[in-house]
Amino acid sequence: MKVIGIVAEYNPLHNGHVYQIEYAKNELNADAIVVVLAGDFLQRGLPAVMERTLRAKAAVDAGADVVFEMPTVVATSSANDYALGSIALLHHCGVVTDLLFGCENGSDDDFLRAAKAIEELEGTETFSDTINLFKSQGYSFAEARAKSICKMKPELSEAFLSSPNNTLGIEYVRALLHFKSDIKPNALPRVGAQHGSSRTLDQYASASLIRDMLSKGDDVAAFVPEATKHLLYDVTSPMLFPDDFSLLLHQRLIEEDSFKRYLDCNNDISNKIRKYRDAFVSYDKFAQLLKSKDLELSRIQRILTHILLQISDNHRNLLHRMDYETYLHLLAFSNQGKVLLKEMKKTAYLPLFQSPKEAMEKLSQVQQKMFQVDLRAADIYRMVTTNKYHQALPTEYTRKFQ
Amino acid sequence: MKVIGIVAEYNPLHNGHVYQIEYAKNELNADAIVVVLAGDFLQRGLPAVMERTLRAKAAVDAGADVVFEMPTVVATSSANDYALGSIALLHHCGVVTDLLFGCENGSDDDFLRAAKAIEELEGTETFSDTINLFKSQGYSFAEARAKSICKMKPELSEAFLSSPNNTLGIEYVRALLHFKSDIKPNALPRVGAQHGSSRTLDQYASASLIRDMLSKGDDVAAFVPEATKHLLYDVTSPMLFPDDFSLLLHQRLIEEDSFKRYLDCNNDISNKIRKYRDAFVSYDKFAQLLKSKDLELSRIQRILTHILLQISDNHRNLLHRMDYETYLHLLAFSNQGKVLLKEMKKTAYLPLFQSPKEAMEKLSQVQQKMFQVDLRAADIYRMVTTNKYHQALPTEYTRKFQ
Repeated sequence: MKVIGIVAEYNPLHNGHVYQIEYAKNELNADAIVVVLAGDFLQRGLPAVMERTLRAKAAVDAGADVVFEMPTVVATSSANDYALGSIALLHHCGVVTDLLFGCENGSDDDFLRAAKAIEELEGTETFSDTINLFKSQGYSFAEARAKSICKMKPELSEAFLSSPNNTLGIEYVRALLHFKSDIKPNALPRVGAQHGSSRTLDQYASASLIRDMLSKGDDVAAFVPEATKHLLYDVTSPMLFPDDFSLLLHQRLIEEDSFKRYLDCNNDISNKIRKYRDAFVSYDKFAQLLKSKDLELSRIQRILTHILLQISDNHRNLLHRMDYETYLHLLAFSNQGKVLLKEMKKTAYLPLFQSPKEAMEKLSQVQQKMFQVDLRAADIYRMVTTNKYHQALPTEYTRKFQ
Repeated sequence: MKVIGIVAEYNPLHNGHVYQIEYAKNELNADAIVVVLAGDFLQRGLPAVMERTLRAKAAVDAGADVVFEMPTVVATSSANDYALGSIALLHHCGVVTDLLFGCENGSDDDFLRAAKAIEELEGTETFSDTINLFKSQGYSFAEARAKSICKMKPELSEAFLSSPNNTLGIEYVRALLHFKSDIKPNALPRVGAQHGSSRTLDQYASASLIRDMLSKGDDVAAFVPEATKHLLYDVTSPMLFPDDFSLLLHQRLIEEDSFKRYLDCNNDISNKIRKYRDAFVSYDKFAQLLKSKDLELSRIQRILTHILLQISDNHRNLLHRMDYETYLHLLAFSNQGKVLLKEMKKTAYLPLFQSPKEAMEKLSQVQQKMFQVDLRAADIYRMVTTNKYHQALPTEYTRKFQ
């Protein structure tokens, strides 16, 4: 049985994502698709435009068979932990045979080569010295890192390494190597460089462009499948944007005088936050205010999200100590998924559950600590939705599973 | 020198308040007027419609000479502590000769007689037994209390005692007795029962009616003096209503599982809050949801405000232990007020200050604990204003005194 794993945010699910699912089924002949989905808060440090159960349902409607929630600590981490934490779930399911991931360009072999090369270099003294040398010449950390890799492994291309769309792919493959997983990586260059899609090019738009259009009230129907259209244009489905979280973030920022304990922060950034917090107006504007050449926007956004959700360095330490062995929190499944879940009862190495009640019975103490963050994140997302749309919503404890 | 003290909320300052100030000047021949003003959160457990420095300035524009801020713990307490805490400030100024307060009806002597009678009864076993007897017959606590007083002191009238507009007046006079103060109480029956006003009856509306009109965008110009008109109809002046605080309150409600430590709460109410909190939609709706025959709205609102501002039973205990000897936080003054403040430098028994920096130098540790609540309340009010009006506002530390 060929089971293909996908790591995704689906924020929101659009035609490009559907193309990937169809490619898995039609080109790679997948019997089933398992998705590890980021929850209500995402890797670039932003809240999702729609809450995770809605996005999970849309994924199933678009062809996914089983959708698990990525723990929030993983979902809001930078690329390395994000990849390790998500691939761990696919690996520990015990049924996934293949990984499919989107990229800018490059073959499966390109990714394997790059991943192996970086695994060799990472942590060595020469590597960090070379990075520092390039940084002293004015390159950003990401640029300096790509240049260093190419300098030490001349067989790799800088253009390939430095494309942001390839970075996550390389990290996924490194994660497979880390877990000594039998899962086979499959790179899918983004639409435009691809044949085989039933859609025309003008049906594709990036998730960030779609969110931008949504925030302005523009029509995005051309770029999303029925499953998402149904959600977005149903008057009762709430949509949130980062500024909806401004007040709660502002409160967190005045409640403490040091933020260095929060994940991705450090003493300098903590001081900067403290210095500027009296000028806080909104989530977006504050992130822009803190941005500088040395401090990129996605890192700031991640830090602000970690402050909002109270995710500290301790959480990352826990994640490392448990080698990413978290849990399989089921969000949605298809009929075919039901069969697969039955199989996983035998194969899965991690606790699998649907409700918080079940979680409390099955999770170890350390796993529960990670899951508490998911519950807090869900509560915050729910409160902000309630405040914006003036309706009480079910909590994680009272929600009915569909 | 005749200095008249007034305890007020001015939420907002309206023609009835101006009438009271003019009465002090023209009928009682006041040389100066000292106002003790409730800050950003008020006695009925609601946030003020405009922040305290704006309301203080309006008071000076309308004829007040010195305006002090009531500590937040006092301003959000029920009638007894509210009166003791505010009268303490007037008493400890050392310059106030007279107290002027509004009431429904009755003479100065009526208030003195009632205050003395209640002082005698309060705390005795017979009194609480009688109250319980009336409560068992289905009367509310306030009703049972009034009935008990009249039963044991037949010379007092139940109609006089049970009018909510008289209750605070009685508490003010009791507070004067408590402090053995030389300040002379003056009761001013509300306009309508009064002569001597330069305005016609249709220029008077209650503060709550005015707030209600403001929340609907109705024109209130006829009921407020120039000072308030200027504020309300200046596009840059922000107005807040209780529901603007919904999100922050909601967050407080999910962060803890017991609320019984908060001032005015108890175990039963804490359980009720916990039971209903998943149905939270907004501040107003949640207060309505909790309301019952035994639990009146103003108490619920006070509890919710205490949860929002983190005011606990400990704060009341501190207040009692220090016998209400808090501080004189100056908010605004007139030219005449400047002269009075100079005099107070010699007479005032409590630390007098303008800025938080000065407060930290002058306040005792216990007083600082009370003042920290004021700073927190100001921060919360400011954050909510920033969130609603998308502008950064000065903090208590960066605000310029006008």
